[in-house]
Amino acid sequence: MPFLITSRTNPRLKQLRAALDGLTRLSEGYIGIEGEHLLEEALRSGLEVKSVFLREDRVLPASLILPPTLEVISVAKDAFVSATESPQGVAALVIPPRHSPEALLRGKPLIVVTEALQDPGNLGTLIRTAEAFGATGLVTLSGTVSPWNQKALRASAGSALRLPIVAGDTATIDLLRRNGVRILAAVPADGIPATKAGLVEPCAILLGNEGAGLSASMLGLADERITIPTPGPTESLNAAVAGSILLYEAARQRAGEQ
Amino acid sequence: MPFLITSRTNPRLKQLRAALDGLTRLSEGYIGIEGEHLLEEALRSGLEVKSVFLREDRVLPASLILPPTLEVISVAKDAFVSATESPQGVAALVIPPRHSPEALLRGKPLIVVTEALQDPGNLGTLIRTAEAFGATGLVTLSGTVSPWNQKALRASAGSALRLPIVAGDTATIDLLRRNGVRILAAVPADGIPATKAGLVEPCAILLGNEGAGLSASMLGLADERITIPTPGPTESLNAAVAGSILLYEAARQRAGEQ
Repeated sequence: MPFLITSRTNPRLKQLRAALDGLTRLSEGYIGIEGEHLLEEALRSGLEVKSVFLREDRVLPASLILPPTLEVISVAKDAFVSATESPQGVAALVIPPRHSPEALLRGKPLIVVTEALQDPGNLGTLIRTAEAFGATGLVTLSGTVSPWNQKALRASAGSALRLPIVAGDTATIDLLRRNGVRILAAVPADGIPATKAGLVEPCAILLGNEGAGLSASMLGLADERITIPTPGPTESLNAAVAGSILLYEAARQRAGEQ
Repeated sequence: MPFLITSRTNPRLKQLRAALDGLTRLSEGYIGIEGEHLLEEALRSGLEVKSVFLREDRVLPASLILPPTLEVISVAKDAFVSATESPQGVAALVIPPRHSPEALLRGKPLIVVTEALQDPGNLGTLIRTAEAFGATGLVTLSGTVSPWNQKALRASAGSALRLPIVAGDTATIDLLRRNGVRILAAVPADGIPATKAGLVEPCAILLGNEGAGLSASMLGLADERITIPTPGPTESLNAAVAGSILLYEAARQRAGEQ
């Protein structure tokens, strides 16, 4: 029988709460996931799952096959709700996938780099779109929200567990450039139109903060500035939408579409 | 001197709360907006502002010129916070812009039609992108969240106050078709690739629910099904992203880009 946690202050529950908040230092490096679907996805992606937390009234479906050595912890209803705020009754601690920057360089690189992207929904959405359009990975620069934040993870629809994601800095940008990757800064106006930006070649697309855009120092690192032409009365695009359109445009050009 | 509301149960505050929640029946048809920026945008767009609610410690900037007849209601801090959950200290009741379906048909129509789109952030983002790419308007079919919901309005970055938005039904689709607009259903797979879909001609793009997609009856009304090609291991795109990419693709084709 798995043992039952009844106290809200149980250290294992605190670790889970920290992991679910993306506070990986407090969670000893583990990330937290919620729900049957993400647990299934984590196991399918070959991630190492440390512990599964199950609300006491919840039973896992027979179709979900857990490794026999995996620890399953039963949690009293009140304690579970306070730790997860989730109606799903299933959560887990998982060792996050680790990728070296070299993983981004496989095949013909198409990389998204986010600087100070703060909305977890935006980051998760970008990760989801990046995987769909065959990007080789994503680099989060300082100030970007954690991809293991639950909102980001949910918005990524599981893609964050599969797509190579690297926490990087200017040295990462240098590494990409030395390996033949062009560094393209997305700007709201006055860049080369995306349609003419030559996204067929290995490239990394820099995306900035929702309000402030890219910093002057990041703009200084770019080989080129690119802009999505907007014929309407406003040039305003959401950050995740702008990044997604550039990924679509890259995939379109790479497919040789006219 | 404007009078001061101190009670949380004041009927004017209740009306504001209903309006901010997009419950236009309870608010007697008014919509609610929060923040200086949206108030300025509403006045600039020529909308009729009925009342401005100002937290008692808040002063409007001199640059914001209110019509002299406009009612300004001062609200005690506690009462204001309970009604708006907003840190901004400024809110207003506004008569929503009204557009006939014919407003969608001006110029070369490019129309977004949403069926049962439930996430206000997705709807607002779509409205923002639609305006940026020169769409002529948007139709919300039954089950779609209100564009006057505060999350939707914020995500639209003010575009919801400018772009023609019409609450419609199948008769609206019929009207569009009779006026030469092709009805294109966005589907996740097996449609005509978006790049070959002929978006230069007058068209309306049908977008479905985040989880379930378009209903069989809406699919039955479409002249054509279109799909965004996704070379990656998953075809999964967020609903607002998918709609935004199709709007970009339409604008790209219309600009004669190769």
